[in-house]
Amino acid sequence: MAEDNSPFGAARALTLAGPLALDGGASLAPVDFAYETYGALNESRSNAILICHALTGDQHVASQHPVTGKPGWWARMVGEGKPIDPARHFIICINVLGSCMGSAGPASLAEDGRPHAMRFPVITLRDMVRAQAMLLDHLGIETLQAVIGGSMGGMQVLQWAACYPQRVRSAVAIATAARHSAQNIAFHEVGRQAIMADPNWRGGDYYADGEPPTKGLSVARMAAHITYLSEEGLTEKFGRRLQARDSKSFGFDADFQIESYLRHQGISFVDRFDANSYLYITRAMDYFDLAEEHGGLLANAFAGSSTRFCVISFDSDWLYPTSEAKTIVRALNAGGAEVSFVELPSPFGHDAFLLDTPGLNTAVDGFLKAGEGA
Amino acid sequence: MAEDNSPFGAARALTLAGPLALDGGASLAPVDFAYETYGALNESRSNAILICHALTGDQHVASQHPVTGKPGWWARMVGEGKPIDPARHFIICINVLGSCMGSAGPASLAEDGRPHAMRFPVITLRDMVRAQAMLLDHLGIETLQAVIGGSMGGMQVLQWAACYPQRVRSAVAIATAARHSAQNIAFHEVGRQAIMADPNWRGGDYYADGEPPTKGLSVARMAAHITYLSEEGLTEKFGRRLQARDSKSFGFDADFQIESYLRHQGISFVDRFDANSYLYITRAMDYFDLAEEHGGLLANAFAGSSTRFCVISFDSDWLYPTSEAKTIVRALNAGGAEVSFVELPSPFGHDAFLLDTPGLNTAVDGFLKAGEGA
Repeated sequence: MAEDNSPFGAARALTLAGPLALDGGASLAPVDFAYETYGALNESRSNAILICHALTGDQHVASQHPVTGKPGWWARMVGEGKPIDPARHFIICINVLGSCMGSAGPASLAEDGRPHAMRFPVITLRDMVRAQAMLLDHLGIETLQAVIGGSMGGMQVLQWAACYPQRVRSAVAIATAARHSAQNIAFHEVGRQAIMADPNWRGGDYYADGEPPTKGLSVARMAAHITYLSEEGLTEKFGRRLQARDSKSFGFDADFQIESYLRHQGISFVDRFDANSYLYITRAMDYFDLAEEHGGLLANAFAGSSTRFCVISFDSDWLYPTSEAKTIVRALNAGGAEVSFVELPSPFGHDAFLLDTPGLNTAVDGFLKAGEGA
Repeated sequence: MAEDNSPFGAARALTLAGPLALDGGASLAPVDFAYETYGALNESRSNAILICHALTGDQHVASQHPVTGKPGWWARMVGEGKPIDPARHFIICINVLGSCMGSAGPASLAEDGRPHAMRFPVITLRDMVRAQAMLLDHLGIETLQAVIGGSMGGMQVLQWAACYPQRVRSAVAIATAARHSAQNIAFHEVGRQAIMADPNWRGGDYYADGEPPTKGLSVARMAAHITYLSEEGLTEKFGRRLQARDSKSFGFDADFQIESYLRHQGISFVDRFDANSYLYITRAMDYFDLAEEHGGLLANAFAGSSTRFCVISFDSDWLYPTSEAKTIVRALNAGGAEVSFVELPSPFGHDAFLLDTPGLNTAVDGFLKAGEGA
């Protein structure tokens, strides 16, 4: 167990003995965790906020990314004077099960000292949340002031509230859905097929020698990236503008800015993400259907819950559109739960939850403070 | 020049000497054409209808496809008693320049007896239309009763009306746009990168020996196919239903019907389409911007046109949505052209133009007959 004593952005790693029973029938033991904490747990152990990250996110929520050198992915939301503030909160962000930034996943080592690769069991969102609960148990955190996240992070928020209603006082689910639609699955399947079509993938056994399937992973990222942006946002940002040239090349270079941008997104992604993790986490998301786990009725997932909910959507998000947020809100209402809902305007589509979107911080800040004041 | 005398669906091939000057500055000579005709040209040579096909379409508009054995791609629209009727019309459908069903393209033979491959010049929609006009000149067809097409076929319709207003009495543009948006380009770029990432692509030189880049082309087709269907249609058709199993496999097989469907679409496509053609035609579509060719003002493309226009969109088409159709209609109005516009309801997205969509045949039939009666 590596630890440091820095007050902010402490990177931590921990291995628990397990076993962690998984939805697919297998179990994991031991279980590796990589996570970060910010701020300090108060005496009553009542100020812990768990931040759940998205598909390609990580625990570096408000600290510099070790590979890219970029600021934390949610530095706009987390930090001094921000809605989630280490001066007030004990903040935890855990690299999800199946990912590649230190927690157990296909790239982590199995008992035989070799990476699990495709021997890693297929996991679910519920498995990710169970793993997080196991870590919080170990840290002695029984109750969370709040669980918060966007996209797949929002799915974990809903799953937390459904699995452990007594442990979650407030839940903030942003730009998310309670189940993956056919179109969501379709986009993920394209990405998986792109990775598996890359001869460097070699059934997932590319860790020891040879090149990883960077071309396939890059194509997967490009396809996904389109879904993170709105048509309106793309038009505003790129339109049909040419990239560093005055006229079309009549060739297959990146003539248009949007082509150049997408290629950059694809190429830069492969430096920081593992292709097998992309397979496992997209699979977990596709399997996600909170109603299915509760007799086909989403309201059952939240029946009698005392958790306060805040659901936020963005009007140009076509990946997890407002209609999906409203489905969640209706189920919460039917289950008798307390819920605030806001649809925020943004031209930037799904990515709005990561950007400087007017109203987002205000909504989260107000909701969290109302919970603290209560 | 191969010809037959069958009255219906006569498959024809023809090579013209050229040269055909291209927008990119190159020229083609000779120029191969593969096309089909149905019905007979009347004495006044006034009943010719040109049907323009989409990206992966071909000249087999109402005849069995030679590779797949399936009926023609628009047999719902073309045939005895249909809106486009060989009893009344002389129907022509030409495989577009750059395609792979017999017309000049990367797979056709260059002067050195080897396939052009990537030596084929990059072409535009206007080049495709110029080639069609060259063939019609040869056939002695000066004026077209109508030009009609959906998707990229609709773009050719608009290009025909802009380039040769005197030759087009009626124009029917379905499920299309007057320019490719950033999002349209983005999806095509993902497809191109998937093809080029396949090591079997080998810079396009895969014709003589070795395997073609079927995996890359299959991924490209899968990504494109998502854009052809609406979220609503996908949910209705597939939802989260499992494929030939009672429960999730907790593996990477095609658990969901949508995965199985997409994989099938990808795999079956590679038997009938050439990867290099996919590169060239998507490039031509991305280059398409009819306003750009006319001083940045789309209305200029149609100023003073005596062509009658019919513009049809589908309410669930998010690839070329109704807003794009309305842009065309506004430009036609501003240019003083006669235009009918209808948005048809359909749950099936962009693909609705190929399906049994209520109102589509009626709209086309009424529009064509009104032109004949005049």
